[in-house]
Amino acid sequence: MAQAVSDEAWLQAMLDVEAALARAQAAVGVVPRAAAEAIAAACGASRFDVARIGQEARRSANPVPALVRQLTSALPAEAAAWVHWGATSQDILDSAMMLVARRGLDLITADLAGLAAACAGLAERHRATLMPGRTLLQQALPITFGLKAAGWLVAVDEARVRLVEVRRQRLAVQLGGAAGTLAALGERGLEVAAALARELRLAEPVLPWHTARARVAELGAALAVAAGVAGKIALDVVLLAQTEVAEVSEGSPGGSSTLPQKRNPAAAVEVRAAARSAVAPAGLLLGLMDHEQERAAGSWQAEWPALTEVLLLTSGATGRAGEMLEQLVVDEERMLANLAQSGEPLMAESVTMSLAARVGRARALELVGTSLQRVQSSRTSLREELLTDPGITGHLSAAEIAEALEPAAYLGSTSKMIDRALAAHAQRSDPR
Amino acid sequence: MAQAVSDEAWLQAMLDVEAALARAQAAVGVVPRAAAEAIAAACGASRFDVARIGQEARRSANPVPALVRQLTSALPAEAAAWVHWGATSQDILDSAMMLVARRGLDLITADLAGLAAACAGLAERHRATLMPGRTLLQQALPITFGLKAAGWLVAVDEARVRLVEVRRQRLAVQLGGAAGTLAALGERGLEVAAALARELRLAEPVLPWHTARARVAELGAALAVAAGVAGKIALDVVLLAQTEVAEVSEGSPGGSSTLPQKRNPAAAVEVRAAARSAVAPAGLLLGLMDHEQERAAGSWQAEWPALTEVLLLTSGATGRAGEMLEQLVVDEERMLANLAQSGEPLMAESVTMSLAARVGRARALELVGTSLQRVQSSRTSLREELLTDPGITGHLSAAEIAEALEPAAYLGSTSKMIDRALAAHAQRSDPR
Amino acid sequence: MAQAVSDEAWLQAMLDVEAALARAQAAVGVVPRAAAEAIAAACGASRFDVARIGQEARRSANPVPALVRQLTSALPAEAAAWVHWGATSQDILDSAMMLVARRGLDLITADLAGLAAACAGLAERHRATLMPGRTLLQQALPITFGLKAAGWLVAVDEARVRLVEVRRQRLAVQLGGAAGTLAALGERGLEVAAALARELRLAEPVLPWHTARARVAELGAALAVAAGVAGKIALDVVLLAQTEVAEVSEGSPGGSSTLPQKRNPAAAVEVRAAARSAVAPAGLLLGLMDHEQERAAGSWQAEWPALTEVLLLTSGATGRAGEMLEQLVVDEERMLANLAQSGEPLMAESVTMSLAARVGRARALELVGTSLQRVQSSRTSLREELLTDPGITGHLSAAEIAEALEPAAYLGSTSKMIDRALAAHAQRSDPR
Amino acid sequence: MAQAVSDEAWLQAMLDVEAALARAQAAVGVVPRAAAEAIAAACGASRFDVARIGQEARRSANPVPALVRQLTSALPAEAAAWVHWGATSQDILDSAMMLVARRGLDLITADLAGLAAACAGLAERHRATLMPGRTLLQQALPITFGLKAAGWLVAVDEARVRLVEVRRQRLAVQLGGAAGTLAALGERGLEVAAALARELRLAEPVLPWHTARARVAELGAALAVAAGVAGKIALDVVLLAQTEVAEVSEGSPGGSSTLPQKRNPAAAVEVRAAARSAVAPAGLLLGLMDHEQERAAGSWQAEWPALTEVLLLTSGATGRAGEMLEQLVVDEERMLANLAQSGEPLMAESVTMSLAARVGRARALELVGTSLQRVQSSRTSLREELLTDPGITGHLSAAEIAEALEPAAYLGSTSKMIDRALAAHAQRSDPR
Repeated sequence: MAQAVSDEAWLQAMLDVEAALARAQAAVGVVPRAAAEAIAAACGASRFDVARIGQEARRSANPVPALVRQLTSALPAEAAAWVHWGATSQDILDSAMMLVARRGLDLITADLAGLAAACAGLAERHRATLMPGRTLLQQALPITFGLKAAGWLVAVDEARVRLVEVRRQRLAVQLGGAAGTLAALGERGLEVAAALARELRLAEPVLPWHTARARVAELGAALAVAAGVAGKIALDVVLLAQTEVAEVSEGSPGGSSTLPQKRNPAAAVEVRAAARSAVAPAGLLLGLMDHEQERAAGSWQAEWPALTEVLLLTSGATGRAGEMLEQLVVDEERMLANLAQSGEPLMAESVTMSLAARVGRARALELVGTSLQRVQSSRTSLREELLTDPGITGHLSAAEIAEALEPAAYLGSTSKMIDRALAAHAQRSDPR
Repeated sequence: MAQAVSDEAWLQAMLDVEAALARAQAAVGVVPRAAAEAIAAACGASRFDVARIGQEARRSANPVPALVRQLTSALPAEAAAWVHWGATSQDILDSAMMLVARRGLDLITADLAGLAAACAGLAERHRATLMPGRTLLQQALPITFGLKAAGWLVAVDEARVRLVEVRRQRLAVQLGGAAGTLAALGERGLEVAAALARELRLAEPVLPWHTARARVAELGAALAVAAGVAGKIALDVVLLAQTEVAEVSEGSPGGSSTLPQKRNPAAAVEVRAAARSAVAPAGLLLGLMDHEQERAAGSWQAEWPALTEVLLLTSGATGRAGEMLEQLVVDEERMLANLAQSGEPLMAESVTMSLAARVGRARALELVGTSLQRVQSSRTSLREELLTDPGITGHLSAAEIAEALEPAAYLGSTSKMIDRALAAHAQRSDPR
Repeated sequence: MAQAVSDEAWLQAMLDVEAALARAQAAVGVVPRAAAEAIAAACGASRFDVARIGQEARRSANPVPALVRQLTSALPAEAAAWVHWGATSQDILDSAMMLVARRGLDLITADLAGLAAACAGLAERHRATLMPGRTLLQQALPITFGLKAAGWLVAVDEARVRLVEVRRQRLAVQLGGAAGTLAALGERGLEVAAALARELRLAEPVLPWHTARARVAELGAALAVAAGVAGKIALDVVLLAQTEVAEVSEGSPGGSSTLPQKRNPAAAVEVRAAARSAVAPAGLLLGLMDHEQERAAGSWQAEWPALTEVLLLTSGATGRAGEMLEQLVVDEERMLANLAQSGEPLMAESVTMSLAARVGRARALELVGTSLQRVQSSRTSLREELLTDPGITGHLSAAEIAEALEPAAYLGSTSKMIDRALAAHAQRSDPR
Repeated sequence: MAQAVSDEAWLQAMLDVEAALARAQAAVGVVPRAAAEAIAAACGASRFDVARIGQEARRSANPVPALVRQLTSALPAEAAAWVHWGATSQDILDSAMMLVARRGLDLITADLAGLAAACAGLAERHRATLMPGRTLLQQALPITFGLKAAGWLVAVDEARVRLVEVRRQRLAVQLGGAAGTLAALGERGLEVAAALARELRLAEPVLPWHTARARVAELGAALAVAAGVAGKIALDVVLLAQTEVAEVSEGSPGGSSTLPQKRNPAAAVEVRAAARSAVAPAGLLLGLMDHEQERAAGSWQAEWPALTEVLLLTSGATGRAGEMLEQLVVDEERMLANLAQSGEPLMAESVTMSLAARVGRARALELVGTSLQRVQSSRTSLREELLTDPGITGHLSAAEIAEALEPAAYLGSTSKMIDRALAAHAQRSDPR
């Protein structure tokens, strides 16, 4: 990704737009075909002096005038005459930004596909691997590790679908000319815009969007959401990898500069760092929609680095998360052991529900609560306490109590949910 | 909107979910129909002590346990037994949040429809009203006020379409039980979830989304984008209403506490304030996706006020923007006068393009640039300077120069663009 | 705090400024003393119609004109004539904002003093309570719970000191008149401003700060930092309260709506939610510094709710954190048990350092690392492995190895650090 | 600045910390002096393979272990043995971050000093240059351009003072060892920390601050405030440079890729872009204070790029703002002409105040308001209308009315304020 959003990549994208513009105008008959081909042929970033363009960019607060000067001077007069014809700097930069975004999205959606595959593998493989479900970081009820992975899977798939949607619907060509009227192209403006969209394989917008920045803001938000999905997975991994939990560990844990025994969840840490950071440029893009009149004096110029950064960070989060999950080491024994640590009290809801069907929810909560208090004070087992309470044994037999205390029997729709997640994934994985 | 997101509205939404849950379970056969009806009948917010629920909410870090206690105690035992059956606090709150969001979205999409109508009216009415287009707040080229309004229109319509999409696709029921397995509902969990979705007319998600928060983050982002669209319009209004520009004024301008002559763009100021503020809770929601394991210890609880706030602020921005535009006073004479102030130099691109078709873009820029410099030093008119330069008159006749200096003749695709925007609007305004 | 930042509190603060302005002008001789006293006497919020002021505020995008109208109409002509003399809306609102902020800061610094006291108590009491130090949530080295609390203490104290500093240096009166020149007060403007500062006990700024908003941004940031300090403590509590760690629990844990056994860290959860949320309005205030010319068209108006919110959230975080720590239940046995769980490998650095003094750091890391690997593969103890490696026993005696494996002997500067933190706290707790 | 925060600069800063650590330990007698000197001599960044360190950094989620490996392997055994003695990665990185921050702050405070000098020059030079003051972008009252510049000046000076304060008080050494106890240094930990602080000329904190991140958050906020101050100046410049206002222009305005007549405020645009962007990493740093236990799993790692970015952006904003103001072209005639455009109505407050002293503020507002309405409907002058209203002429003579309508006579404390700002600046410019 670093390459896809480098200064060189941005420069090439701008040149791609200049080349496509010339070709689109040739197709429409506005520019001579030979001139267009000469322009297109000259649009290789390696021929340009990136540093100088960067330096001169300061003068205009954008790099396009300098780029156009270099491009023009590299061409014979009859082609040079047609460079940048009818366009304005923002046309080039905005369209280039869409190309950069597209390349970035392709990498990230591929990352997400890999991450989803890793989730799906874990969901399938650990469909029945019992572990404690934790709410507010307290053990709550048994779940399976497969269900947790299925939850990750659905989130990853939905984030990917949204990015694919943004890619298809919101990456649009920008061509408006100096003030959005396409005046310099006379009657042919919209025709050229349509041809340019075809050349660049970008959507054709209803109007030029030079000061309508929702598509950039939405792109940033969708990327941050994808990063956030990876971040949630990494957070779970960090928590499950804690010394006292130890239910998972990374395949290639990180070392410490001083502690030889440390097995740090380094990948998860990096995913979390990237995911949390991605929110900043995404939030910035949401706040940069206030473009003045026909071109913004600051909000527009701030978009380029923000978009670059949110692409980089999201890619960092999603790519590394995939590697992390693919290599994840799952300790099923430890999961069972942790479940056993909480022991029967974890099954309190199960007993409550069995009882509630007979005596009502409120009364059942009360009865089971009393038993739990006795467990805590007397250090007996919940089963013992339940069996000594006539309020309970009057309604539940010993066998029913035993059944209610069995974690594997109290998983509800876990298996069906995993099926649903895998089925939805299979469907969504079809080529777009 | 204040009402739609009030504490009472949240309470009623939670009660609506409890009622719908009972009914859904009755439909599926999990709960006796009579009990369900009794529960549903008791779920009127006015019967509840909101203040006490608020106070007790602190104990559990969420209001549902207190609400369930009040609801249970208000019912006869045979109905009380079935209250909140198989659900957990987050099921109630998350589903209620979707109901609150839906009501908020309905108000905001209606606001946006009104705002779009106002934009469309201006686009149509001022299709040919000449004014200066301004880039980096410098006069650049002539546009029409109708084109500016058409740009607003497309942005408003797209924001509305996105909100409608979010409303339809992302407002989903949440039902997972204590740890997301629906364990307390045995085999019937998913059936109940589907029935609950039908009762509440919410989408049925692939899996419970208790810790997959993309839908909340996306909702916040889409709202902030809508607010941002209104904010851009308000920014344009503030700038056009400046004393020195004076092209528009508000129908009901604000007064000053000390300056009797002030006619402040008060509505635009309030829209801008709301729009800029909306980014903060939206950014926060993007950053709150890191929910720990099966229920978050803080990120979840922070969502409720953030969503409330982004709904309020977006509604403030979009609603007030509609009123502002409906009453907007447009001074066509002043627009023309401002255009004349810049005078012929504003038409420099027009002359350049005419000339470029004959001598190439680079040479044309050079020739016109020289004329412009002479204009500045000698305080003559551009027309005079152009006519005295044989490098120009050798390629353009006096009539061609005159034509090139005519603003109304250099509007490019303006009129077609307005048609496109109005046509897209007409299509999008169809009932969803 | 809810009361201190309520609509009524803002209204009273604005009235306090109007009253103080009249008195300051009387002191300077600009306004008749009798008129000033009549104005001051009328400035009780309870006499005003808050709802109507709120409604009319929309017209001017600020509430002061409506308030001035109500105040004026409540007074006899000879006093009414002098209401709001020479001031502008922003003077009243900005100075009122400082009063609201001061009251909020007083509450929050008191909260922080309480929180610091709780930290200091824990630091003292648990000075020698061994527990695992955890880095990247992996057990790393032994620390004491007192040291952890000492770390919290220093952070709380520093946040409080910063808020006290902001309160003293940055809460300044605003008086500039309609455009910042104090023109309406002729020659007496700065004299009145100084007198107003004295009346309100606010700092006198070098210049009116109507569009220099650093003090508001800094206030927001300092509050968010204080909230962040509380949030870090709450995060530690949530993590230490995890079922598998169980080293602390809240004194009044929260219940669940469905799981009778749950003991949720409800206070920590609420502190975290508030702390994370506080960043949003604080970040917004940082972003609202771009005030246009002599009064902002949006950025100013967005400050009031953002400041209100950051005060509320910070107060929520710091106040609740104090209660949480005061009641915190610390399980010393469990801390020791968790330390033992990692066992001797946790002491690897200790052994390494003992060895490094003889063979160098790199070689020592290598030797101890090899022993650790053998521990993992052979499930022996680290002591056994160390004692069987001649590379180690050649440099360390069995007694030295035993000493190096003793957690309580490897606490470094822990005790001195606790002393430093307590000493710094004692010094800082002196009345300001 | 790009150089001061480059990867190489970070690397050198980390090496500076390793070198200083060795020297500090030699000073205290923990490490042999010869070893320390050998280590220090090896700590030149140019000898290291930055790319490889970057690559290996991924494994540990931080670059220090790789750096320590390279450093160790470059030394003879007797020196290598003492590398990184008793420290942990975070000690090196956090202390290095402070060094990077210090260098960045030095550049930025120098930028701010230059910016302040430019402001002071304008304030002095344009002390009496009349121009319209504008509130909500409406002309309000006459001010002078010198007063506006004085307002900028005070803001710049206060931002600089705050950064100097942060630099002095909050840039502190970090040394805690693996879990913050300095265990590996036995009894000598705090002594080494003090010596290290002296070596690096950083403050010695009360305790290691590995998870107390207020100083990083405060640093980010103070930088964003400085950027915001520059951004406000740039916003004023953009607005004053508008075609219709034209009161200032940049000395080296930017060109357009298509419009030969454009004179874009390119510097102001870049300052605004940088200033708005700086808020994002600063807000992120405020939100990253939630560090888990004794070392964060993500929040810490996200700080490095965020701090780098906020330094870069603030430097971009403040440095460019200085150049912009130094070259600013001020059009005094145009300022007067714009003032005249609003004409006498702008002096309405002046007349009102003169009248209010005789008839009270409410009655005066009413009388002047009526005259203003007549001006608007009848297109007469305000003077004429005032002179025909017996309600006014009964209290003000024609000479008094003429005096009240004179802009230069209604500047209140403008000149004294400029003196105050310049005096405060002179005092603050003393060497720190």
